[in-house]
Amino acid sequence: MATEQSSKAEERARLQRNRILDAAQQRFIENGFHAASMANIADTAGMSAGLIYRYFENKSAIILAIVQRQLELLRDDIKLHRKVDLAAELVSHYGHACTTKGSGMNSALLLEISAEATRDPQIAAALDEFDRTLRGALAEWLAGPRENDGHGLPPALAQSRALLLQVLVEGLKIRETREPELDRALLETGLREIVPLLMKP
Amino acid sequence: MATEQSSKAEERARLQRNRILDAAQQRFIENGFHAASMANIADTAGMSAGLIYRYFENKSAIILAIVQRQLELLRDDIKLHRKVDLAAELVSHYGHACTTKGSGMNSALLLEISAEATRDPQIAAALDEFDRTLRGALAEWLAGPRENDGHGLPPALAQSRALLLQVLVEGLKIRETREPELDRALLETGLREIVPLLMKP
Repeated sequence: MATEQSSKAEERARLQRNRILDAAQQRFIENGFHAASMANIADTAGMSAGLIYRYFENKSAIILAIVQRQLELLRDDIKLHRKVDLAAELVSHYGHACTTKGSGMNSALLLEISAEATRDPQIAAALDEFDRTLRGALAEWLAGPRENDGHGLPPALAQSRALLLQVLVEGLKIRETREPELDRALLETGLREIVPLLMKP
Repeated sequence: MATEQSSKAEERARLQRNRILDAAQQRFIENGFHAASMANIADTAGMSAGLIYRYFENKSAIILAIVQRQLELLRDDIKLHRKVDLAAELVSHYGHACTTKGSGMNSALLLEISAEATRDPQIAAALDEFDRTLRGALAEWLAGPRENDGHGLPPALAQSRALLLQVLVEGLKIRETREPELDRALLETGLREIVPLLMKP
């Protein structure tokens, strides 16, 4: 009985935390990280500022939690799909730089967090863990055996190709923020050419 | 005589403007765009705040001028070298994300400006002009005849390859801010493989 109650309390806390993170993402995207305040994050979340401070001591703690949530999403995503048409996914994801809703990481916010990381070692460390996880998963996928939907690349080659894929994905995030109306056909032509080359042994 | 005096005054104004832009870049990089103030930009430039306001009405005007100065540097650079080892240049430029001195565009600042552009249409327009100039020059270089150090690509292919090169260059800027100590040999291996492929007809 006590366990059931405490798990309900945990679930409630988890939902409230997520509500704060969603509201913070929306504020950071619309106002920028520095212009957003704890008070207007509270306002967007429909909570009192006092309640928000029970979960997060400041905006840096919120950014950290956003990066960590993103890392969890990435880990789930890696587990779920191993067989992907990467070029098609990159094209279809393109253009969500200014979406403010939901828990997915927005490109403009990612740029701002990356810039902030050059001044905040804790954020830098969290991003570094995210980056290592992503690049490790890409390298494993590229080096994995074909019968498991891998690409059979030698491990050293898989490392440099994983780095290039990561650079490509990140470059698309800058492009998204700067050119939301980019010609998709041109992008698709380019990606359909380059992505398969990066997966070939 | 009057002309000589006015050209001296123009030169003086040009130098002061540049001094302000250098100081602003340093403050934006060290403190972030929003945390930096006109007062501490003045302080870094060793000028009075009043003098700065004679040149720029606010921080947005300074960011605009930084992007425009960058565009001029790009135009000079395009004119000067047509024959480049692009992979080698990308490797050798890597890792200057946190440099605060001089007039070259720092990667962390570029990310912040890109994020800011999603909220400020004037900055977005200036970046867009920069981007079009860069991509146009890349496409022209790729499509140009080999006897002029071009790469002889068909024009349509040159367009999609120029986009990919731009994405690659921008992706490296994110990576720089997040992984200044990246294994250069790994990066060089990757770039030495991919860059020539992007230039092949």
